[in-house]
Amino acid sequence: MSRNALKLVTIGGGSSYTPELIEGYIKRQAQLPIKEIWLVDVEAGLEKLNIVGAMAKRMVKTAGLDWEVHLTLDRRTALKDADFVSTQFRVGLLPARIKDERIPNYYGMIGQETNGAGGIFKAFRTVPVILDIVKDMQELCPDAWLINFTNPSGMITEAIKTYGHWDKVIGLCNVPVMAMSSEPELIHKTLDELTYKFAGLDHFHWHRVWDNTGQEVTMQIVDKLFGDEDAGLPTNIFDVPFFKDQLENMRMIPCGYHRYYYRQEEMLAHGLAEYRDNATRAQQVTKIETELFELYKDPNLDYKPKQLAERGGAHYSDAACEAMASIYQDKKTHMVVSTLNQGAVPDLPSDHVFEVSAQIGAAGAVPMAFGHFQPAERGWLQLMKNMELVIVEAAATGNYGLALQAFTMNPLIPAGATAKRVLDEMLVAHRNYLPQFTDKITELLAAGVTVQDKVAAELTELVPV
Amino acid sequence: MSRNALKLVTIGGGSSYTPELIEGYIKRQAQLPIKEIWLVDVEAGLEKLNIVGAMAKRMVKTAGLDWEVHLTLDRRTALKDADFVSTQFRVGLLPARIKDERIPNYYGMIGQETNGAGGIFKAFRTVPVILDIVKDMQELCPDAWLINFTNPSGMITEAIKTYGHWDKVIGLCNVPVMAMSSEPELIHKTLDELTYKFAGLDHFHWHRVWDNTGQEVTMQIVDKLFGDEDAGLPTNIFDVPFFKDQLENMRMIPCGYHRYYYRQEEMLAHGLAEYRDNATRAQQVTKIETELFELYKDPNLDYKPKQLAERGGAHYSDAACEAMASIYQDKKTHMVVSTLNQGAVPDLPSDHVFEVSAQIGAAGAVPMAFGHFQPAERGWLQLMKNMELVIVEAAATGNYGLALQAFTMNPLIPAGATAKRVLDEMLVAHRNYLPQFTDKITELLAAGVTVQDKVAAELTELVPV
Amino acid sequence: MSRNALKLVTIGGGSSYTPELIEGYIKRQAQLPIKEIWLVDVEAGLEKLNIVGAMAKRMVKTAGLDWEVHLTLDRRTALKDADFVSTQFRVGLLPARIKDERIPNYYGMIGQETNGAGGIFKAFRTVPVILDIVKDMQELCPDAWLINFTNPSGMITEAIKTYGHWDKVIGLCNVPVMAMSSEPELIHKTLDELTYKFAGLDHFHWHRVWDNTGQEVTMQIVDKLFGDEDAGLPTNIFDVPFFKDQLENMRMIPCGYHRYYYRQEEMLAHGLAEYRDNATRAQQVTKIETELFELYKDPNLDYKPKQLAERGGAHYSDAACEAMASIYQDKKTHMVVSTLNQGAVPDLPSDHVFEVSAQIGAAGAVPMAFGHFQPAERGWLQLMKNMELVIVEAAATGNYGLALQAFTMNPLIPAGATAKRVLDEMLVAHRNYLPQFTDKITELLAAGVTVQDKVAAELTELVPV
Amino acid sequence: MSRNALKLVTIGGGSSYTPELIEGYIKRQAQLPIKEIWLVDVEAGLEKLNIVGAMAKRMVKTAGLDWEVHLTLDRRTALKDADFVSTQFRVGLLPARIKDERIPNYYGMIGQETNGAGGIFKAFRTVPVILDIVKDMQELCPDAWLINFTNPSGMITEAIKTYGHWDKVIGLCNVPVMAMSSEPELIHKTLDELTYKFAGLDHFHWHRVWDNTGQEVTMQIVDKLFGDEDAGLPTNIFDVPFFKDQLENMRMIPCGYHRYYYRQEEMLAHGLAEYRDNATRAQQVTKIETELFELYKDPNLDYKPKQLAERGGAHYSDAACEAMASIYQDKKTHMVVSTLNQGAVPDLPSDHVFEVSAQIGAAGAVPMAFGHFQPAERGWLQLMKNMELVIVEAAATGNYGLALQAFTMNPLIPAGATAKRVLDEMLVAHRNYLPQFTDKITELLAAGVTVQDKVAAELTELVPV
Repeated sequence: MSRNALKLVTIGGGSSYTPELIEGYIKRQAQLPIKEIWLVDVEAGLEKLNIVGAMAKRMVKTAGLDWEVHLTLDRRTALKDADFVSTQFRVGLLPARIKDERIPNYYGMIGQETNGAGGIFKAFRTVPVILDIVKDMQELCPDAWLINFTNPSGMITEAIKTYGHWDKVIGLCNVPVMAMSSEPELIHKTLDELTYKFAGLDHFHWHRVWDNTGQEVTMQIVDKLFGDEDAGLPTNIFDVPFFKDQLENMRMIPCGYHRYYYRQEEMLAHGLAEYRDNATRAQQVTKIETELFELYKDPNLDYKPKQLAERGGAHYSDAACEAMASIYQDKKTHMVVSTLNQGAVPDLPSDHVFEVSAQIGAAGAVPMAFGHFQPAERGWLQLMKNMELVIVEAAATGNYGLALQAFTMNPLIPAGATAKRVLDEMLVAHRNYLPQFTDKITELLAAGVTVQDKVAAELTELVPV
Repeated sequence: MSRNALKLVTIGGGSSYTPELIEGYIKRQAQLPIKEIWLVDVEAGLEKLNIVGAMAKRMVKTAGLDWEVHLTLDRRTALKDADFVSTQFRVGLLPARIKDERIPNYYGMIGQETNGAGGIFKAFRTVPVILDIVKDMQELCPDAWLINFTNPSGMITEAIKTYGHWDKVIGLCNVPVMAMSSEPELIHKTLDELTYKFAGLDHFHWHRVWDNTGQEVTMQIVDKLFGDEDAGLPTNIFDVPFFKDQLENMRMIPCGYHRYYYRQEEMLAHGLAEYRDNATRAQQVTKIETELFELYKDPNLDYKPKQLAERGGAHYSDAACEAMASIYQDKKTHMVVSTLNQGAVPDLPSDHVFEVSAQIGAAGAVPMAFGHFQPAERGWLQLMKNMELVIVEAAATGNYGLALQAFTMNPLIPAGATAKRVLDEMLVAHRNYLPQFTDKITELLAAGVTVQDKVAAELTELVPV
Repeated sequence: MSRNALKLVTIGGGSSYTPELIEGYIKRQAQLPIKEIWLVDVEAGLEKLNIVGAMAKRMVKTAGLDWEVHLTLDRRTALKDADFVSTQFRVGLLPARIKDERIPNYYGMIGQETNGAGGIFKAFRTVPVILDIVKDMQELCPDAWLINFTNPSGMITEAIKTYGHWDKVIGLCNVPVMAMSSEPELIHKTLDELTYKFAGLDHFHWHRVWDNTGQEVTMQIVDKLFGDEDAGLPTNIFDVPFFKDQLENMRMIPCGYHRYYYRQEEMLAHGLAEYRDNATRAQQVTKIETELFELYKDPNLDYKPKQLAERGGAHYSDAACEAMASIYQDKKTHMVVSTLNQGAVPDLPSDHVFEVSAQIGAAGAVPMAFGHFQPAERGWLQLMKNMELVIVEAAATGNYGLALQAFTMNPLIPAGATAKRVLDEMLVAHRNYLPQFTDKITELLAAGVTVQDKVAAELTELVPV
Repeated sequence: MSRNALKLVTIGGGSSYTPELIEGYIKRQAQLPIKEIWLVDVEAGLEKLNIVGAMAKRMVKTAGLDWEVHLTLDRRTALKDADFVSTQFRVGLLPARIKDERIPNYYGMIGQETNGAGGIFKAFRTVPVILDIVKDMQELCPDAWLINFTNPSGMITEAIKTYGHWDKVIGLCNVPVMAMSSEPELIHKTLDELTYKFAGLDHFHWHRVWDNTGQEVTMQIVDKLFGDEDAGLPTNIFDVPFFKDQLENMRMIPCGYHRYYYRQEEMLAHGLAEYRDNATRAQQVTKIETELFELYKDPNLDYKPKQLAERGGAHYSDAACEAMASIYQDKKTHMVVSTLNQGAVPDLPSDHVFEVSAQIGAAGAVPMAFGHFQPAERGWLQLMKNMELVIVEAAATGNYGLALQAFTMNPLIPAGATAKRVLDEMLVAHRNYLPQFTDKITELLAAGVTVQDKVAAELTELVPV
């Protein structure tokens, strides 16, 4: 690693989050001796890259820093000799996410970015790309650290480890960051006064908390969180409360995304209402993004605007910067990351990726042992991890039978003919980003499978096969 | 164990299956030196006990055997010095099963005897009774073998081992028996020419098959089973085909009950159609049973009538007889039973009950190691086993939070407010058989929870609280 | 597999055991439709091959069978289209075994064929040869079964599975056969009346026994075995009794070879006495073998002579024949074999070889689950299995550091400079059979390492480098 | 826990280490708001308690602190409402250690405080006492933390968790402290610039090290440590080098005590030479202690004298103070402690004690996941942990068969009649401290078993039975 002139590369540099990332770098200028920042994107994202890239340059300049900010579509040039590579790209951009939501919704199923059929297809589209990036990195920057926050972050990290055979990767999630930033004050503490232990999977983890006298305060936080007020919930998740009786049995704090599984009925109802209003989350985000990029165009804007917070996904980019600084400065910070289990949760295979409280330093992520889960949470966890393995293998191999197995296992997809129909329509809808499934898609097109939801169908038509 | 004068006790002796059991004994008269057969039932089952008991006596007499057949409501007298105790009772009789089906159906969920909400409640009602029986056995016949075929057989066996601390138990299931009796001819083989390896859970197992040249013939059987014709399916399961693509990925033969999970949509639709016709499976069975008992009353009937086959559950009683004979004669027979894992499926905890190909002899059941499952089946299996543990603990302790956790985990119950409503209504509906949940039920009754399905509500009213 | 004209190949066909093998075939003529028997050996074993081969032909002829018996040094011709390949060769013949015993003995350590330094070197010499054979089989008879009884049988089977990637292999051991043939009568039972459960490693297993009433009779057998009389001990093991207090805690029957570990002091003293008398076991066997081959030369001898029993290793060849017949006839026989764990002993890795009671049929070996060991036996077992893995990896790779690790772990070798000296002398002594260690041996020779024991040194000199 | 007036209790307060402990407290006066220090000892240690206690008072006074220092033989009064209890007692004092060394030495075996027969007997004597202490704590100070540094520290911690059912315990060892204090400078680093990962068992652990650029520097330290110079070795361990070839294969840094296992021959020779010189380590320490206590008597001595460093065991007491401060101040310090595995080393049972890098804070010890070991180290580790379990169970139950199993498993004891003789003599020699073995000892005395080593025999005679 270059000790005095870091080259930082971000794949998906045209993202609306880039200002948070730049802000994170600026905030850590004493910890990260940056020389070059490379923002990489694809042709389809060029306009956004130019807008947000110009803003990034303004932010750096205003901060009085001499960092070079490069905007490029040439990934390989960017990766050459990189020290840190962060990934925040979205294959197919927001239109793909709209399809991930609306196609399942059309058939009365939950459509969501990282869960259910949508999450599976986000993995299917992303895995081939990330494996390509890793291949480039093996050649062009074999000592670099890869900080992934492309969703579904846990599965993408699994693919990087298991199919890319790349060890220097840390997967990030903003959900624990949000919990740790909002919960302490609920019990009149600061974060420093608490010990957090998270474990589980990305967007499917639980945590327990102790105070500085050694007393467990998990249930105190539960009372505050799910009592009168709510807190720490990602903005993109509908706020239905958990069942008190269940929480009291669990004695751990579930994450926001557990709502999809513990209150499936209500989350579905909420999602379908948004669908009927032609305002699924991706559709809302598309609007927010348009506004954001309008803001970003302002040549006087040289700081992260407040409106970004509404976007959802806050803290991801800052967490990425913190991970880089922790590694570079060997800070041994506590962060919650996706990394190899190594036994920390003995209920899961030791050689696969999970999400856990870890110490982040120069030697990478060292997970803190969490011990066994109780049967209820263990059952969920083992189902979900195995489903992740099935999805990632299907994504890496293009095996249709495995894709169907994943759909069948997924607790948000009622198994049967309709589920298979959703799978098939989504293969057709995302066909431009699923090279691994080409044969099956050709067969489906020949059989006349078309997308039934009109919005999704239109977005599909825009993309020539 | 008495070597020359066996005392065999059946709890739930008034069952319509008793003739199959008696036939099984008669068939094995050379292997089982029976002196006494005790058929035990409860007050509510007395009439059926008398009818079927009289028939049992006729069958024994016609066979020219001098076995004593005792009919009794006094379980303790029956258990005294027993050699084999078999359990085939149904707590709450068929009306309870009707409620298990119709209450979930009312809310658009699968209602089924051993799966979904119905299966959970069958366990809730049965566990307290079986633990009482085991307590009696510890005192009255501490060396007896317990052959359980009361459903849900796997969970009941788990309760016997884990909460009853009784080791000499074998749990039975007729599904593997049916597979092994119907599959061989599909590929023009006899059972003797094949090697079967089953593993999984009761009503949730898979199997693989090899022929006598060592070639695996699993997929040949799959082709026959799920190609043109179907075979080996319990009569109580609607025949929707599995997805070919999924089977080809799985490369194992699922059991009939997997339909509820792999084709949930279709199974639900079928169940709801029966519900609307006021003819759920339990309602059909009630009718069949009435006819059966009419037949049994015929003083000339001294053999198992053909009509019993329609009842579903065929082979269970015969399997129980075979298990007794295998133990008594140390036959080292291959049977598929619920027993302690001991590592045979390393994906499941080694000290809990699962269902597996085992050698049955005087030393009990010795499971054959099956090895690891692939991720898709492993995920299902781990979810389901953990759910079983949650259900059994809830049943043994009356913990409502755990009951809610079980409902939330169950893949056939969409989690949320309606699921909780179903749980609450079922607690109320089955209140006479759920002493462990008394406090919660009192609270629910006070809150005015009542059963909404009219048929179930009427059956509930018949039972004074 | 040929169904009517089996081709059976034995590598190491010139062994003195071949008559037992031929007798085993003749005994099973109704089960094994043999057409050709191929006895393969190396140049150095040609004379013995011719003697024992001629005798084999006489035995077949006397039995009135038309089987072809081929004697050859051309392994590849023999392997072509073979149905069963059995391996009973000894790399370096008896002189190598003399060195395996005398070099450790010279330094006051146990010298033994399958344990201690000798066992490690037998593995080092054998692994490269067996991997060559497997390579030939992959090309010439990819559907054949490999029945290995070359020692150390467990480690050789491990090498075949892990480094040869050959699945159709069964490793055999005669020790369980001897136990099962001698123990039943001690408690006035027949083998059929007992259930045996063995588990552990080759030459390091324990067993438990139940009678046909389901009662465990393990400790009854222990009392008989280690009370007044001894039984079931291989002829090559000195008969020092186990400690009664230890056995009562163990509550399992150890195997004869456990004496080396549980009574190390006495076994060492006995071995050193034989060493001083110039009569180590290999030296005794050399004499017995010479006599045996004199007998075999007798053109009238057409049956297995009694004297072979003194040789040690009885039952190995018969077990090999039984394994072949069980596979070919799909007999589902209980045999104790080295095969993949698959969870049957959850204390050991599921994907490595161990020794266990298994059902042997057309589908191969199906291990019976044994469950967890108690800590004392578990500790021994885990040490020994890990040591086997280290030895096999060292044997497959020629890694000297690993060889030294194996010597350090071995409970029969006191770690330190002398142990390293023994390792080095043995590398030099066996240099003609250790191609994988060539570089290290060259270095040792350059450093002037020579064999100190005179007998071993002379045998080494006979072999030109 | 009292937040402003801590009560600290030390069992074995008369130890020569007490000044280090007091120094440690004084050093951390800002972190630990101490009110009372209670030094507890037994009658036989009263003289030492008075000497060292007086010195402790002088040290506190000189530091200008108003802490109360209480000296007492009344353990229960001391424990009442304690906040931290540290244990540093030696049952039987140094004469017992002399016997632990000399009795095995007499028979040509390694005699050592925490390894071999001596270590087993130290556990046998200590476990009953620590379980008594825990029983008192459950009654008198149920919220206190127990910081154990009585050896064998890992096994004592195991006994506290498994048989005492006490969770708030941390076991300490000074060996990792010494490694971390001496190694960094070898590679021109400070401790802050390195990441240490330790795992294994107390006195049987390995570690790996990374620098602040993320590069592993383990082998650089190995080169320095075992190249020209040695470092970080406890003063009580003879300095024989490890084999370079072995270390290069291991790629981890073993601990000093591994010498007993990796260079058993040389360690034995060294120990026997000391034995012949009548100067085993305990005999040397007795002399050092006498001198130390002479020093301590000096009414002007009010600081820890340099000579204590020669005593061996340096850093233990300081580590205890650091553990207390880390818990009290929730410092989340990296320390290497004995605690529950919880999966951190998946090769060992998750519910037992091992030694590991952990984060120490108010919530106790959180182990850092280490992942799987390679087979060589895994084999050693699994043997040793299982042996620990056998020893602790024997110590807790007085089961002689288990004691013999432990002796048989121990790699430093050649199994056989002499080993059993050593076991029996040591039972007799330590009879006053082994209430759990009373029956067996009575039997041995009746059979005339006496201690053969004269020095040990004399020490035994001093103690009336």
